[in-house]
Amino acid sequence: MIANTPAPPYYAVIFTSERTEGDEGYAAMAERMLELARQQEGFLGVESAREGLGITVSYWRDLDAIARWKGDVEHQEAQRLGRKQWYRIFKTRIARVERDYGL
Amino acid sequence: MIANTPAPPYYAVIFTSERTEGDEGYAAMAERMLELARQQEGFLGVESAREGLGITVSYWRDLDAIARWKGDVEHQEAQRLGRKQWYRIFKTRIARVERDYGL
Repeated sequence: MIANTPAPPYYAVIFTSERTEGDEGYAAMAERMLELARQQEGFLGVESAREGLGITVSYWRDLDAIARWKGDVEHQEAQRLGRKQWYRIFKTRIARVERDYGL
Repeated sequence: MIANTPAPPYYAVIFTSERTEGDEGYAAMAERMLELARQQEGFLGVESAREGLGITVSYWRDLDAIARWKGDVEHQEAQRLGRKQWYRIFKTRIARVERDYGL
């Protein structure tokens, strides 16, 4: 689903990744992280797709909300496992959404 | 592939969409638009995945490069057809990438 974000400005975390082989607890953790993200103060929405490359864009009210989410204890453990075993390569980009339009 | 973007700041165009049924020339046009985008001055890279929801993030040196790409005659025709028949719904977000990190 396309995220129902408010009028800009707000922030986007663009997380692009290539997975390693095998699940290794990944699907359950990904599900849990989505559930946890939705509970964070300042969370505005998320969009995700994987087709070889995985792209997840989460939207946030401000940089403080992003910093709090990055520092969440359970999320930190997921980040550690991501670096260690789930992702072959990834890139996280923090961006300020300045304008949007659509259909 | 994860786009090999330079050090921030630079810009991202986050294009999220849900397609209509049927191809209707979509695949060929999508391919052509990628080819054309890569030739634009100020183009830095692109990442794309579709899994129900489609997410394409293209990266650009500055807002001028994005404006030129949006105004490209062939791209304008693709945008027109997109609104008319290819997309059930879409959202385009223009964002300034301020920070990135990865593995």
